[in-house]
Amino acid sequence: MQNDIVKTLATHRKSSRLFRTETPPIKDIIYALETARQAPSGSNMQPTSFIFIDNSNVKAKVRLASEKGEKRFYDGLVEDRKRWYMEKELSWHKPNLEEAPFLIAVVADSSKPNFFASAWVSVAFILLALEEKNLSTVTYTPSNPSLVAEALGLPKIQQVITILPIGYDADPKLKEPRKPLKEIIKYNDFDTPFIE
Amino acid sequence: MQNDIVKTLATHRKSSRLFRTETPPIKDIIYALETARQAPSGSNMQPTSFIFIDNSNVKAKVRLASEKGEKRFYDGLVEDRKRWYMEKELSWHKPNLEEAPFLIAVVADSSKPNFFASAWVSVAFILLALEEKNLSTVTYTPSNPSLVAEALGLPKIQQVITILPIGYDADPKLKEPRKPLKEIIKYNDFDTPFIE
Repeated sequence: MQNDIVKTLATHRKSSRLFRTETPPIKDIIYALETARQAPSGSNMQPTSFIFIDNSNVKAKVRLASEKGEKRFYDGLVEDRKRWYMEKELSWHKPNLEEAPFLIAVVADSSKPNFFASAWVSVAFILLALEEKNLSTVTYTPSNPSLVAEALGLPKIQQVITILPIGYDADPKLKEPRKPLKEIIKYNDFDTPFIE
Repeated sequence: MQNDIVKTLATHRKSSRLFRTETPPIKDIIYALETARQAPSGSNMQPTSFIFIDNSNVKAKVRLASEKGEKRFYDGLVEDRKRWYMEKELSWHKPNLEEAPFLIAVVADSSKPNFFASAWVSVAFILLALEEKNLSTVTYTPSNPSLVAEALGLPKIQQVITILPIGYDADPKLKEPRKPLKEIIKYNDFDTPFIE
């Protein structure tokens, strides 16, 4: 096995909010979900399900419900946060939820222990698996997950964790810079930086 | 690049609670944290820090604080959950927090948006990176993270997300079985299973 592939994939990966119209092979999505299936979960309760969405009407409903929540969220932002989002060219508009070839709605059974953490571990496995297949996504977290759950007709116990719009990258934005390693690793104590 | 490596790593990976005494190369831990550094985060706020712990006194303090929280948790369990944990040979005792060659305490700035989800994505990146280096761990989530935060002397705003005891696997337990794919993938609708 080639060396350092996980780091290479993680490093190359960036969030994409704009996709080519070309439809990816469904087997690559299945591959990512087969990877997610292997993720550990709280007490191995496997609370996470993945709704694979390619139907235009369902995508439109997900977009509408998401934008309703985002509009409220953006309206409520304080000025400097609003400016930050504007600089990043982010807004309550979520056209990619309708335009991406596929969506995966990640939902989790909220009655299970550590369901939220467990779901996010499986999402991260998906991110690296998609990157390996040259597919892009962004972990869109609805400001009001209940609206999206309602649009998807989920049972009450199921919580929407994230919606992943998936396709081939057409987003001109570069990867956002990351903090240097020495800022994020501490040594035995939160106040002692780790010097390699 | 070889095919399907992410899925292979995810499939081979299992949680380990028992480790060989042999100390792994620190560069392999750094590799995993370099991978974690690349993880996406809410609004790219990068809320997560990683405390690399090799000091015996610090490990002992983390174990003590963790066990204090676990004891309360296990005492409060209803009978059938208690039996489940006993069958899995799990208890409030956490010797691996002291015996593992290394711990990584994953902590996150709780003032940042989506800090919890963001931290878990970076943890999942660590899991696959460690697997690639033939290292094992378990995502131990303290029942009372505040006790562990106190033992580590964290600033109030920092929340303990998980403690990863890391080493070479010596745990005889097999990987817990996973649900079949058809149970976890739905098609456009939560009630419609996806048939490939």
